[in-house]
This record gives sequence, structure tokens and C-alpha cells, in this order.
Amino acid sequence: MSDTRYDVIGIGSAIVDILSRTDDAVLTDLGMVKGTMALCTAEQSDRIYSRTGSAIEVSGGGAANTIAGIASLGGTPAFIGKVGKDKLGDFFTHDIRAVGVDFLGGVGTLPTATSIILVTPDGQRTMNTYLGACTEMGPDDIDAARIAASHVTYIEGYQWDTPQAKAGIRKACQAAKGAGRKVALSLSDPFVVDRHRAELEALIKDDVDILFGNEDEIFRLFQVGDFETAVGFARATNVLVCMTRGAKGAVVFDGQTTASVDAAPVAKVEDTTGAGDLFAAGFLYGYTHGRDLTNSLRIGAIAAAEVISHMGARPAVPLRDLLVKHGL
Amino acid sequence: MSDTRYDVIGIGSAIVDILSRTDDAVLTDLGMVKGTMALCTAEQSDRIYSRTGSAIEVSGGGAANTIAGIASLGGTPAFIGKVGKDKLGDFFTHDIRAVGVDFLGGVGTLPTATSIILVTPDGQRTMNTYLGACTEMGPDDIDAARIAASHVTYIEGYQWDTPQAKAGIRKACQAAKGAGRKVALSLSDPFVVDRHRAELEALIKDDVDILFGNEDEIFRLFQVGDFETAVGFARATNVLVCMTRGAKGAVVFDGQTTASVDAAPVAKVEDTTGAGDLFAAGFLYGYTHGRDLTNSLRIGAIAAAEVISHMGARPAVPLRDLLVKHGL
Repeated sequence: MSDTRYDVIGIGSAIVDILSRTDDAVLTDLGMVKGTMALCTAEQSDRIYSRTGSAIEVSGGGAANTIAGIASLGGTPAFIGKVGKDKLGDFFTHDIRAVGVDFLGGVGTLPTATSIILVTPDGQRTMNTYLGACTEMGPDDIDAARIAASHVTYIEGYQWDTPQAKAGIRKACQAAKGAGRKVALSLSDPFVVDRHRAELEALIKDDVDILFGNEDEIFRLFQVGDFETAVGFARATNVLVCMTRGAKGAVVFDGQTTASVDAAPVAKVEDTTGAGDLFAAGFLYGYTHGRDLTNSLRIGAIAAAEVISHMGARPAVPLRDLLVKHGL
Repeated sequence: MSDTRYDVIGIGSAIVDILSRTDDAVLTDLGMVKGTMALCTAEQSDRIYSRTGSAIEVSGGGAANTIAGIASLGGTPAFIGKVGKDKLGDFFTHDIRAVGVDFLGGVGTLPTATSIILVTPDGQRTMNTYLGACTEMGPDDIDAARIAASHVTYIEGYQWDTPQAKAGIRKACQAAKGAGRKVALSLSDPFVVDRHRAELEALIKDDVDILFGNEDEIFRLFQVGDFETAVGFARATNVLVCMTRGAKGAVVFDGQTTASVDAAPVAKVEDTTGAGDLFAAGFLYGYTHGRDLTNSLRIGAIAAAEVISHMGARPAVPLRDLLVKHGL
């Protein structure tokens, strides 16, 4: 295997998050399902925005958050995504480059994607995403040579909502597998699993080596109701499953081995946006830097704890400092 | 005196803050004076931005922060400012309206103003402002009837950096004084005092009833070196001076009476952006709601403590809840 240029190359949506605190009643009133992501048109997004309180804007996007987290941990990642030719595109590009990520993104003709994220007092986030320029990403945006030079290619489940992007993902998987590299997939959202189960199952069977999801997403995907049966499915599909369990921590299993970690302590959960993304960042940093499963889980738990302690899905402090502090 | 429509009407810059954590060495390297605001061109702003780390975007602007704070306290304020016809203008307009402010702003032809705010580990902020559409505000944007219907007209010292705005301020002062209303001025920044001392002195002598500034700004304006001499100047100019002293709290004096308050406790000072603005919000809320000087100072201290406990210059929680909690 030739030298790797990147620890992890991520493919995902380039989104600027619009974060606003709200009450549960507002979610009900707007017909939102708490803790999930709904796609919306530009008009729907405007309507929701007009109903929300004062907000802050922060770069986001599931895979982009993960990749930013890996850079913050001291890794060498790259990100492929598409922004619009506008101020929010400038913000996204600046923020991901500023943290040390090689941003291989293109510029589309539609506006930069936004996600209006409503944060309830319990710290849960409910997202409304206008995909904009993200829908313009396709196979031409995938540089096969760079994929082949990456230890892991990390794909966001959300990409299945964009037909052109799927073709790009297939090209990326082919390049990765052809070079003997690993493919990781994040399930992103329970509704993504429901919408695209058959295609995701086929992708996992054929190409995926590492699968990230929370308990709900993993159980929905495998259509199981308990952990033991899920382990059986992992064994059958020959995939390493990293399952987050919120306050109960995380567990990783491949059918042979199981390892788990408690959630790292957090004084107050401010905003869970990015919790799963940053867990994946920590795990993948460990995985690509020779750490064992248990230590990779620990790094994931530390990264997730940092991001839920404040508003926004990107680390507020350099995560490598936290690793040093924890002796990892 | 006729009924008031607004407690406070603010006139100031409509700015979106771009907040980024940095080290002191970066400030030195970029030739910035810590704790102050420097004006910059669009090109200079771009150059500084390219040197800064990952950022978050939050609505800001000195007087706008104060007015948002008064709304958050339960007051009835309005704000006059000018945004660009762009996404950041939408954000600014949304955020100030969402908190309950009557935004009487216009839309200019230049981009919405931005301030790149570098926050050092001690929580101090150093600002680099591109004024954009703010420079297009002038007398036509000032609605004299609404000024006359406001208990207090609150002016930002920063407006002196914009020639057209000064003419607008003069019109506003005339309308306020003609209706027997009060005029308040924030000195905004020590360099503002140095740049425009003569004009500010004349304004204070003729029109200002309440003056806000930190110790450095007030002492520079009066060209004094100690508190007692400053009190003498307040007496001579017949102005109520509200002077913030950072961690030492705040003091208010008019030459006859002096009252002071300790700083409200803060677990960790994250970002001092907006400390003075929110102190002014609390004080003016108290002042326009019949509280005495001491209780007005207390409300100011509580509002300032909230805003320095997190990134960004707008309250993260409804300030009226904090008032209730403190029995004010």
C-alpha cells in the first residue's frame, strides 16, 4: 500500500448552520420531529427562519464537522463539498481551511446550503436544511487519485438525498476499494435510513468497512430491536459498527470483538449538534493513528463531549489539547 | 410630555460580528491594539480574515447590542441603522426583530458591515470593522417624530467616524431635545474619543444627558487622571456619567450624587464583546422604568455579566428571566 496523503477524506454537504434556541412548543407548532433533520425548499427555509428567534451562524455539515474535528485533533484530513459563490460560502471555506483541512470543494451556482437548527432547553437539536449548492455536487467533484491516497474515505448518509451525489459516492468507493483503502459511512439521521434502506444496505454489503450511527439508526437499518441481533448483522456484513448511545456512551462491534466507552462528563449539555459527527472524528483519528478500539472510542467520547458543551458543531478549542490533557 | 412610544431609540452601526479565538501574538503580528476597534477597508478586512481561525457569525454593533439587550430585559426599544441588501443584512434584521426591537433601518447599496473580532484567551476582544452600508446612513434615515416619541435617544460614539451619520445625529438630538427627551451617548472606544474629542465635547455640552464609557474613555475625554477631577467635569457639563470599570464594576455620577455597583460574578469570562453595550442596556432599562441609580446599575451589571460569559455580544438567554431571578 502506498503512502497516504490524508488520514481521512470526507464527502458531504457544505452547510452553514443557523442556530437558535427555542421551546418544544415551537417544534410542535412547526410540525418538526425533534432530534431529526428535515429537508426544505428555500421558501420553506425562509418561513421557518421568520418564526425563529435571534440566531448565530456557524459552519456545519455532518461530514464537514467530522473532518474539521480530525484536523483539530492533529490529523491530516481533506473535505469534498460544494458551496455557493456567496458570503456563506466564503465563511464555510474559510472555517474549514482555518482549522487545517484541505478543502477540495467546488463552487456551484445555487446559494450555499443552510440548516436552521432549533435547540431546545434539553440541548437537543432539530434541523431544517436547504441544500442549495450541495445538490450540484456530482462525480466530477470526486478526485479519484486523492481518494486512493486516503487511509479512510468518510461518507455522509445525507448524500443519498441528492441523486447526483450518489454517483459521486460510487466513484469514490470504487477509487478507495481499488486502492485497498477503507470506506466509512455515517447514517446521519433515522429518516435517511428509512428513505434509502435498500441502497444503504447494498453499499454496506459491498463497500463499507466502518459504519457510524446512533442506536436508533443502526437498529432501523438492520431492522432489529436488540443489541445481540445487531452484533449478528455486523458479523454477517463484515462491518465494524460504531454505535453512539447518547448519555450512555458508545460501543463498537464487528461480530467478533466488542468494546465500549462511557460518555465523557459534561458540566451542561448546551447543544447536541455535532455530537455524532465529533464522535466519528475522534474514533477515526484514533483508528488512522494506530490506536486500539478502546482508545479510539475514548478519543471519540472526548471530542463529542467538547462539542455538546457549547452552541455549534465545530470544536471551540483545539481538540489535540484535550487529548494531551487526557494522556491520549 | 406626551406618551412615549419607545423606552429607548438607538442610532448606530448595523454590524455582523465575525468572532474568532486567537492568541496575543497574532494581534501583535497584525499590528492591532488589544481591546480597541480599528476601521478597515474591505480589502484589509479580507486580509485579516484570511489570517484568522475558524469563526462564528453573530449580529453585533454597539448601539444595536444595547437596544437588543433592552428588548431582552422586557423594554420597548427601536433601532435605526443601515444594512446591505445581502445575507448578512438579512441576519442582522432578523436577529434584532426576533428579540422584539422595532427595526427602523434602511437598506444601502454597499455590503452589510462586518467586524472581525479576535478574542484572546483572557476574554478581551480586538475589533476590525468594515463599515460598508453603515457609511450610507444620514439625516434621511432619522425619523424625527419617532425620536420625539422616545424617552431616551441613544447614540453610538462610533457614528462620528461617518460624516453623513453625524448630520443624522444632529437632527436626532434636535428632535429629542425639542420634545424634552433625554439624549444618551456611548463613547464606544478610546480612539473614538481621541479622533473626535472637540466635537464630542460640544455635543456633550449642548445635548447629552447621559454619558456611557469605560474609565479610559471617560478620563481621555475629560483629559483627567483621577476620579475626583472627573466628577468635577460631570458637574460642570451637567451630565450623568455612567463609567464601567471592568472587573471592578461600575460607577455613576453627576457631580452631586455618586452610586456604584460591583461587577456581577461570572464563572469564566469567555468574551468581553458587548460588556459595555449590555451594561448600558441594563442601566437604561432601569432608568426608563423608574428604578433608582443603584438598581439601574445593578441591572446593568447583571446584563453585562451574562454577555461576557459566552461568545458574542447579544444575550444568550432572556435577560428578563435574570431580572426576576435577582428580584429586580
